[in-house]
Amino acid sequence: MQIAPKTNAAVSTDVVIFTIRAGRLSVLLVRRQNAPYAGLWSLPGGLVGEGEALEDSALRILLEKTGVQGVYLEQLYTFGQPGRDPRGRVLTVAYYALVPYDRLHVRGGVERLDWFPEDELPPLAFDHRQIVGMARRRLSGKLHYSTIALQFMPEAFTLSELQGVYETLLGERLDKRNFRKRLQALDCLEDTGKRYNGGNHRPARLYRAKSPGEVRIIR
Amino acid sequence: MQIAPKTNAAVSTDVVIFTIRAGRLSVLLVRRQNAPYAGLWSLPGGLVGEGEALEDSALRILLEKTGVQGVYLEQLYTFGQPGRDPRGRVLTVAYYALVPYDRLHVRGGVERLDWFPEDELPPLAFDHRQIVGMARRRLSGKLHYSTIALQFMPEAFTLSELQGVYETLLGERLDKRNFRKRLQALDCLEDTGKRYNGGNHRPARLYRAKSPGEVRIIR
Repeated sequence: MQIAPKTNAAVSTDVVIFTIRAGRLSVLLVRRQNAPYAGLWSLPGGLVGEGEALEDSALRILLEKTGVQGVYLEQLYTFGQPGRDPRGRVLTVAYYALVPYDRLHVRGGVERLDWFPEDELPPLAFDHRQIVGMARRRLSGKLHYSTIALQFMPEAFTLSELQGVYETLLGERLDKRNFRKRLQALDCLEDTGKRYNGGNHRPARLYRAKSPGEVRIIR
Repeated sequence: MQIAPKTNAAVSTDVVIFTIRAGRLSVLLVRRQNAPYAGLWSLPGGLVGEGEALEDSALRILLEKTGVQGVYLEQLYTFGQPGRDPRGRVLTVAYYALVPYDRLHVRGGVERLDWFPEDELPPLAFDHRQIVGMARRRLSGKLHYSTIALQFMPEAFTLSELQGVYETLLGERLDKRNFRKRLQALDCLEDTGKRYNGGNHRPARLYRAKSPGEVRIIR
């Protein structure tokens, strides 16, 4: 028995791919070649394959556009407003991904792909502006009650670098002493035993996440 | 131009309707009459209408099954695993709603609808067990960083009643003094000026939420 096709929708996934680049939270966009919205920038996305799970579709798009796998990916929200796509009813299941910048193979400027600072986006196709906004709010929210910020860090990093990422995401300066006290309480880092020798300052300890893949909820 | 129907899916919404009933977090279920899974319990849900927004569909189901509107409703997650419905590809956009028990017209036992304690569910159709589990985790998470628990309260309530709701949701006893101190810091209640005269104790003050519809994030 087939379900009566009361709503038969095309289903896509779109992925808000965040990285931190030159101290700014940035989003990967693709310039559209075809109608509708030809020439406008849009989120990387595509139709879900027959028999393809939603998350697999998002992972496929992430891999195709960035060459990256094994990074943080989370389902964000499903957008299904009638009329959001002029071609017919298209539901998009939006995901967001956090990618450490040093993991990126595609660094923008090629194949109609480029990175844009999240607060200086060009006009976007469809409801993609709204999708990026929701992803940004989800990320901001999680900053306060989880260790999600670590997902932006390379394999080894200094505490100053980590503080810089928090400052970028929060949009404010943090007190170094308080920041380190709170980090210590979280017990989520371990010393690599190596040091970063970068210029005028004395060499800084390099740390790594204790459980790199895991986002821990803070109560 | 129509999009190539790479995945053309039927789209439904299912709603996890929570209330607190006799001191237990409970979920409204519907007994299925037709195949597949005839005779099993399932979440209230249905196909999204042509031209109907996803949230409107969830609101319609909530109203049809409980007679309630104007309560807290939030999109939870979209489940689209191929094979989750034996009749074909069906995506379901799951929502959850929180309903104060005194607002309910349907109190179970009628029209194949009944309330079940969330930790004593019968076997459920489809992947509905998984959906309820995710809704429960979302609710538990939000308890810690928002005023979401107020959404379960009637128009006026005592602080003891509110503490009871928190204890039910957290599954643990709370210290009365600490609980009231934290509540006061949140500044989310106001005195109605009325008192509840219930039995042996001295009359307790009745409070109401300052912004009944709003769920405030606590930082």
